[in-house]
Amino acid sequence: MKKSLFITFEGPDGSGKTTQIERVAKWLEQLNYNIVCTREPGGTKSAEKIRQIVLDPCLPIKAEAETLLYLAARAEHVEKVIAPALLAGKIVLCDRFSDSTFVYQGITRGMDLKVLRLMDAFATKGLKPDVTFILDGLPELLVARRQKRGIQDRFELEGLDFQQKVRAGFMQLAQEEQERIKVINALQELDDVTMDIITQVKKLLLK
Amino acid sequence: MKKSLFITFEGPDGSGKTTQIERVAKWLEQLNYNIVCTREPGGTKSAEKIRQIVLDPCLPIKAEAETLLYLAARAEHVEKVIAPALLAGKIVLCDRFSDSTFVYQGITRGMDLKVLRLMDAFATKGLKPDVTFILDGLPELLVARRQKRGIQDRFELEGLDFQQKVRAGFMQLAQEEQERIKVINALQELDDVTMDIITQVKKLLLK
Repeated sequence: MKKSLFITFEGPDGSGKTTQIERVAKWLEQLNYNIVCTREPGGTKSAEKIRQIVLDPCLPIKAEAETLLYLAARAEHVEKVIAPALLAGKIVLCDRFSDSTFVYQGITRGMDLKVLRLMDAFATKGLKPDVTFILDGLPELLVARRQKRGIQDRFELEGLDFQQKVRAGFMQLAQEEQERIKVINALQELDDVTMDIITQVKKLLLK
Repeated sequence: MKKSLFITFEGPDGSGKTTQIERVAKWLEQLNYNIVCTREPGGTKSAEKIRQIVLDPCLPIKAEAETLLYLAARAEHVEKVIAPALLAGKIVLCDRFSDSTFVYQGITRGMDLKVLRLMDAFATKGLKPDVTFILDGLPELLVARRQKRGIQDRFELEGLDFQQKVRAGFMQLAQEEQERIKVINALQELDDVTMDIITQVKKLLLK
């Protein structure tokens, strides 16, 4: 039962990616699949060092350098974590990947999407997820839901206008790659969100 | 007399770039030009941090990540050092720039030159040198000359085969961009090398 799969989870901060990854991972483990859960940026020592540079407030870096640093971290992440796991027949669940670059650096900040795609393909050596789940919901409803649960975080601080741009960005990508990218209604009950994701993963496992 | 110029010096380690930059800088200063001498990778705090990651033997990084890190450092270098100096009407003399990436990562290591050019243009926002001097000489003669002066360094350790590939790479670039790239015979007497470079710089200053 060695079926490698590369599954990525995308969507705004606060859309429930971490929770859903945990749930899907649990389900896969119960079925005896070997899984690796990982997140961007990070996953390797050098990627962590790169992350420190990006996030250091004493080293304000510009947009282009930031993008290149994220891509460098991704190259390390792919080469040392994701690709070896896939080669070993594991299922990799990754919190954010290339699509976040396309949305946050490309669509939202106006960098050339074609150039970003090309640079990303250089970093990943062309590795693409088998399936990508976008956890989607009206930004104002995602905020309201989190406030109801007493969670206040970055998601609200970034502003509704920004969140709407991010959402539109993810929808644009989903439109362009309907086969790979699945939009999941993140406003449902947690169990229903998990069920929607599992339904799609099952299809891939049985392929 | 505010004439900004962006001049880069390329060629293998040991071809005399540092010496010639010092000499050309001195000549320009005597003529009252404002100059900035800089080198890659580096020139900014963040670029130095990036350099530390690339050179850390405890963090062996892969070729793609290394290339992206060098490009990130270049983006910072351009944005914070080179572009502001040019805007202020200064003459920038830079030890290595994009052509080193094309030769060392592209031609010598076999990475796709088209992709490298595109990523480099992203990092530099399209900034190209006004003139590039390639300090050129038969690798075995450059080695012999340095040995005669009692200098033993990396240049010899890298092997003749590698040095020949590097040389061929620089010649390929010079062939493709004859207007920008000037090949200088680095095996001449130091004064003659400087004279050849100054002759070309004069032409640009009088343009």
